Amino acid sequence: MKKIAVILSGCGVYDGAEIYESVLTLLQLNERGVEYQCMAPNIEQMHVVNHLTGEVAEGESRNVLVEAARLARGEIIDLAIADASEYDALIIPGGFGAAKNLSDFAVKGPECQVNKDVLAFTQAIHQTGKPVGLICIAPAMTPLIFGEGATCTIGNDADTAAAIEAMGGKHQDCGVSEIVVDQQRKVVTTPAYMLAGSISEAASGIRKLVDHVIDMA
Amino acid sequence: MKKIAVILSGCGVYDGAEIYESVLTLLQLNERGVEYQCMAPNIEQMHVVNHLTGEVAEGESRNVLVEAARLARGEIIDLAIADASEYDALIIPGGFGAAKNLSDFAVKGPECQVNKDVLAFTQAIHQTGKPVGLICIAPAMTPLIFGEGATCTIGNDADTAAAIEAMGGKHQDCGVSEIVVDQQRKVVTTPAYMLAGSISEAASGIRKLVDHVIDMA
Repeated sequence: MKKIAVILSGCGVYDGAEIYESVLTLLQLNERGVEYQCMAPNIEQMHVVNHLTGEVAEGESRNVLVEAARLARGEIIDLAIADASEYDALIIPGGFGAAKNLSDFAVKGPECQVNKDVLAFTQAIHQTGKPVGLICIAPAMTPLIFGEGATCTIGNDADTAAAIEAMGGKHQDCGVSEIVVDQQRKVVTTPAYMLAGSISEAASGIRKLVDHVIDMA
Repeated sequence: MKKIAVILSGCGVYDGAEIYESVLTLLQLNERGVEYQCMAPNIEQMHVVNHLTGEVAEGESRNVLVEAARLARGEIIDLAIADASEYDALIIPGGFGAAKNLSDFAVKGPECQVNKDVLAFTQAIHQTGKPVGLICIAPAMTPLIFGEGATCTIGNDADTAAAIEAMGGKHQDCGVSEIVVDQQRKVVTTPAYMLAGSISEAASGIRKLVDHVIDMA
């Protein structure tokens, strides 16, 4: 049985992992009979956002691994101790957490860096020829992880696409129910909530991404 | 187009709404072309549980409506201002939040009470002949909301079933992929994570529940 790692970045679209994208990923993995293991970096979130008002909750702090554990019903491990050799592939759902906690793309744009544990694990997966799927805004990390010329999509947002190109990546516009595949590097991306107007729209692209990652693994 | 209300009880299985059950409910509503509106009581959670350790986070407090807003991507309203006449049906996902925040069943068992806003809204839906679906542990509130003799399931847990019977309800054992329907009262229930060993198992019963609620609405 194939086993796929899923890196979560918290729990909630504005400061963590996008919940629907994460659950739809796990659902499709499970429906396809693939085992999965959730993992997250054991770091403080960039900040906490009140999802009712959209405002930053001043003075509040939450841990990425502890909040991601909500999305994993407690079945989660610290990314720092995860062993890439145990997995056949990796998927990283989106949400602002991918651009605030897994990297600082939301703040620094093309000058961003990827969290060291995220970078080490993802490159260890990649360097052994295993596929990686990235959803929503998570593909903004593509050039820093997979190197110059790596192809990905974040939908059709011109500023984000330009930032990816500035980092050395190649961006392809893509509809919400489609995926972009870098065959050479085995990198699969889909826009999900960069474009989705409903949970079903997000599901359509995510199902395709998960299926493609499984088939490549 | 039918419009269905969904009451959430926070965001996380141990102190709020079960995330997978909530997302699977919204997904199936959306896949069926039904509009939905999430709502939650504007109250403090009974407590906050660290989902990594399973322990209560002493000194921390979170608001049910604010946390539920994570599950609704911000698209949520205060249950106290929700107007039952605008909806064709209601669904309440499970998670400990249903037994800690929407009611105090987790603490008081058959001596429990239902939060006043939850009770008022749910009875307003029920008294106008509209169906109500309850998932996982949420059906423990059935006798207090729908009165003596109301039939429901929480799976096959003997203690919980006995508590429901002690409150005047009728409990029917039920498999994870099935539903129990009280035809007279239009109450539909399914065990989900009271029994589910995987997200796909939970999905099987929840899809049936959502379909049945839609068809009755």
